[in-house]
Amino acid sequence: MSCSHLDDLSTDIRERAARIRLVGFDVDGTLTDGRLLFDSEGRELKAFHVLDGQGLVLLRKAGFEVVLVTARHSGIAEQRGAELGLQVCTAVKDKFACVDAMRERAGLGFEQVAFMGDDLPDLPILVHAGLSVAPANAHPWIGERVHWRTKSRGGEGAARELCDLLLGAQGHAAAILAEAMRQRAPLAKEAT
Amino acid sequence: MSCSHLDDLSTDIRERAARIRLVGFDVDGTLTDGRLLFDSEGRELKAFHVLDGQGLVLLRKAGFEVVLVTARHSGIAEQRGAELGLQVCTAVKDKFACVDAMRERAGLGFEQVAFMGDDLPDLPILVHAGLSVAPANAHPWIGERVHWRTKSRGGEGAARELCDLLLGAQGHAAAILAEAMRQRAPLAKEAT
Amino acid sequence: MSCSHLDDLSTDIRERAARIRLVGFDVDGTLTDGRLLFDSEGRELKAFHVLDGQGLVLLRKAGFEVVLVTARHSGIAEQRGAELGLQVCTAVKDKFACVDAMRERAGLGFEQVAFMGDDLPDLPILVHAGLSVAPANAHPWIGERVHWRTKSRGGEGAARELCDLLLGAQGHAAAILAEAMRQRAPLAKEAT
Amino acid sequence: MSCSHLDDLSTDIRERAARIRLVGFDVDGTLTDGRLLFDSEGRELKAFHVLDGQGLVLLRKAGFEVVLVTARHSGIAEQRGAELGLQVCTAVKDKFACVDAMRERAGLGFEQVAFMGDDLPDLPILVHAGLSVAPANAHPWIGERVHWRTKSRGGEGAARELCDLLLGAQGHAAAILAEAMRQRAPLAKEAT
Repeated sequence: MSCSHLDDLSTDIRERAARIRLVGFDVDGTLTDGRLLFDSEGRELKAFHVLDGQGLVLLRKAGFEVVLVTARHSGIAEQRGAELGLQVCTAVKDKFACVDAMRERAGLGFEQVAFMGDDLPDLPILVHAGLSVAPANAHPWIGERVHWRTKSRGGEGAARELCDLLLGAQGHAAAILAEAMRQRAPLAKEAT
Repeated sequence: MSCSHLDDLSTDIRERAARIRLVGFDVDGTLTDGRLLFDSEGRELKAFHVLDGQGLVLLRKAGFEVVLVTARHSGIAEQRGAELGLQVCTAVKDKFACVDAMRERAGLGFEQVAFMGDDLPDLPILVHAGLSVAPANAHPWIGERVHWRTKSRGGEGAARELCDLLLGAQGHAAAILAEAMRQRAPLAKEAT
Repeated sequence: MSCSHLDDLSTDIRERAARIRLVGFDVDGTLTDGRLLFDSEGRELKAFHVLDGQGLVLLRKAGFEVVLVTARHSGIAEQRGAELGLQVCTAVKDKFACVDAMRERAGLGFEQVAFMGDDLPDLPILVHAGLSVAPANAHPWIGERVHWRTKSRGGEGAARELCDLLLGAQGHAAAILAEAMRQRAPLAKEAT
Repeated sequence: MSCSHLDDLSTDIRERAARIRLVGFDVDGTLTDGRLLFDSEGRELKAFHVLDGQGLVLLRKAGFEVVLVTARHSGIAEQRGAELGLQVCTAVKDKFACVDAMRERAGLGFEQVAFMGDDLPDLPILVHAGLSVAPANAHPWIGERVHWRTKSRGGEGAARELCDLLLGAQGHAAAILAEAMRQRAPLAKEAT
């Protein structure tokens, strides 16, 4: 039932994580590896990661408000958010205003807001968030200004690390593992 | 005729591998690198790896039962499985039940079942499998609970490592190399 | 307001960067990771990076002339350039002539031209440019002949490093960060 | 005019390279990173690398016979080969026979044949080739049996390393660099 991969996090980060109720994620470079794929007929493609998807669903089921926020017009982000049951704000000029409005509607303080992003448009909300997070490969200006940088790069499980931190800090890890094991047969032999 | 890249495996892993008759593989994150690619017209894309495909076909030809198991609706996984001549179970809510039913139909015990996966939905079957395997980049909760983690990441040859282990542990390696060399000309000069 | 990730650059590189007015970028291998993706119906795909796009827009807004130059016929490069508001020259047989003409039209000397490329067709213009740059994974013949190699690989933020260098060397960094922060609420609490 | 990145190659490898006239390349895992991309409508995609394309064209222009050989049905490989002006053999059951027939037609001995591949179907021709090469991430059975392993992985410039070796060993490097520089303006200022 342990989260040993998070054992080395500071008390400050864990305490910040324990207060979070609303979690926002930038899309390109955070939920993706930052690649903007285009084909010769004008279509755009994006690659999300299955580890992140699992974590985002666990966050939502644990009662967190989760929102994807992107400055790009992106039907793909909307589609991915819908698949995971998440709120999605696309074509956002001002990410701070977008998240701030959600925060107010929910009656939350900034100390209850976490945000994860990798570049300049994320900076205003990152600066206010109670827990600001950047993927390993964020722009240096961002990486130097957040509370925590994940070990994983964007689009390769970075968002899952934040999900795990929040779930662990608020005591959901044991229940999630137990739920994952619910199909376990009654006569199961010893496991490693 | 050696498998020198597997020389450092423990006796326990080799003995577990020697008993396996049924091998199940998760798809996203195990047979792929976990990326879920979407285009702006709603299409989905996945990337399998040619090294894994070769290994899965060798497993099948050596008499193993091989099955791909995924929780996602995925015509791509079905198509890839068909190309390789493998059984495929998609949109699976309960991976344990799916593999368990195959195990029973084949009259096998759990000690004859290997499974490879990278995240929570794989955990129940991994806990029961006689040989449980995770790719290098599996979620930590999974990586800490399996018998063996491959050196390769999912979608970059991780599944091939398991294929090689099983083929080696059951004495198929020499025959496979000999078969691969069957086109060798009679007067071939010394090879390195 | 610092650019600490550029602190280790030599005075020579900073002085060269301070003179630049026109910046040219090769496309494949420089703005992309060099992968030329094709599908079975003849379509081509390319992957640009969101970090690079942000940097290129910042360069343009800071008054630099920015041009993408590629030897390939590429509607994708044209489309990406248009999205970012940049000049694009595709199907270019002679990259030197192309950039040289732009330089003359703008009344600039070569010492005011920067170019970033990764392979032989980029060499003539790289040899003349006041600041020649190659991504980390450029061909060795190119990497050995440029003033500066970025830490990032092509298509993974290499171009952004050049943008940051130019913006920093010409004193734009503080204004860019201030502009990024303009949405900051008046009563914001202390940030890290 | 140096090829310093090849300075550490053994005399044996250089001597083998000096005799080559016909060069064969496997496709998946050698000219690509091994990823087999499929979309939900049955299309297949492959990613070649621009560095490799440049090298293959240089080989052809220097008078080498160059052929791409793949066991898969692949219109994409045919299209890429055509773009580069190369011979392509797809859906090849017996790669040895395919290359052997080309060798005979050209009146060459095996010592004049180089082949680069990464897995079992490449082994018979690799064993006969005067110079056998595998990308860094080839299957261990192959990597242990070739004369030379490149530093780059398949699809990320591994084939270019072989091109550079052959061009360098046969004295073409200086001419290629001179040709690349032919657009150099007469009044060019000092270059680095």
